[in-house]
Amino acid sequence: MTGTEQGLFIAFEGGDGAGKSTQVRLLASALEAAGREVVVTRQPGGTPLGATIRDLVLHGDHVSPRAEALLFAADKAHHVDELIRPALARGAVVVTDRYTDSAVAYQGAGRLLGADEVHELQMWAVDSLVPDLTVIVDVPSEEGRRRRGEVHDRLESEADVFHEAVRQHFLALAQGSPERYLVVDGTASPEEIHESVLGRLASSGLLP
Amino acid sequence: MTGTEQGLFIAFEGGDGAGKSTQVRLLASALEAAGREVVVTRQPGGTPLGATIRDLVLHGDHVSPRAEALLFAADKAHHVDELIRPALARGAVVVTDRYTDSAVAYQGAGRLLGADEVHELQMWAVDSLVPDLTVIVDVPSEEGRRRRGEVHDRLESEADVFHEAVRQHFLALAQGSPERYLVVDGTASPEEIHESVLGRLASSGLLP
Repeated sequence: MTGTEQGLFIAFEGGDGAGKSTQVRLLASALEAAGREVVVTRQPGGTPLGATIRDLVLHGDHVSPRAEALLFAADKAHHVDELIRPALARGAVVVTDRYTDSAVAYQGAGRLLGADEVHELQMWAVDSLVPDLTVIVDVPSEEGRRRRGEVHDRLESEADVFHEAVRQHFLALAQGSPERYLVVDGTASPEEIHESVLGRLASSGLLP
Repeated sequence: MTGTEQGLFIAFEGGDGAGKSTQVRLLASALEAAGREVVVTRQPGGTPLGATIRDLVLHGDHVSPRAEALLFAADKAHHVDELIRPALARGAVVVTDRYTDSAVAYQGAGRLLGADEVHELQMWAVDSLVPDLTVIVDVPSEEGRRRRGEVHDRLESEADVFHEAVRQHFLALAQGSPERYLVVDGTASPEEIHESVLGRLASSGLLP
């Protein structure tokens, strides 16, 4: 394909264990097969700086809630400036495993800070760069817990009630801006979910 | 002395090479000699997390301006939550080498971000904790440069015009809130400056 294509920015959001990574992989493969340059990334941790920040927050000592929110925002800012905007500028498709909505859902809805404050902070960090489409991979909290299996890190050890609050936050976002969101049933097969995503990209004119 | 004393929060601000560290040391010694618990710290880098952040920003690879501002804000948030507020709560005097004004002066006035935005970010990070007194150690930019000698790290290699912008930012802050600031002439002897600081603390009722 030519270099005159528009960049396209797609985010996958959802609880831990929802199956986001599988969908990111399937979508990236499909787009590459169609001849697009695809940049796959994840947040937090999609750059070397981000990986350091991710380690600090997830596996380090106690970090105060505001410091945690600011560290995640710093990762987001760096990621957008160094990786996402340059890729979009050259016409690539950027597919990210988590973006600002996760930050707001996890830190804002479930924790000690207000969701509005965290949202404002995240928007400042990314200088208002919003995905063309955000796919919410939705699974009931209990099913998500079963999938997560054992505890992996600090964030994943929170109680079910926390995960349900996060889930409801995602669903409310999608309901508020249906033109920018697609909610898929994470208990469907990976192939079915993938087809839904491709269908939505085609029907909304984001892909030919 | 008793445990019923009020905590006291004093910040030293000024350009690189202004002599802040010497003043921090002299003040801490004087207060300790008077029987107070004194917590001396610096920003960025006053906690283990902060030291990691300081290394990332000052000696790491390129960090985008927003990411840098957020990292400094994260250091500030963690520092205030983990070290400064607990110390003030038990009646200690906290003396810090740099605080929010440096962040705003260096990132806001001299760089690519708006000072108002950086100020808002910093205030969110520290949840509006403002020092009882901020001492601006002021030296002309050329004198500051002479004192700095060679280049030590990335922030210190900026041009004189940058340092002058930073200096003017500090002076403007002091002019805007004279009740919360003391500007001292950094070309005076360390002892003279120290006496000015003690005099101001006494005259403003912050110390007996």
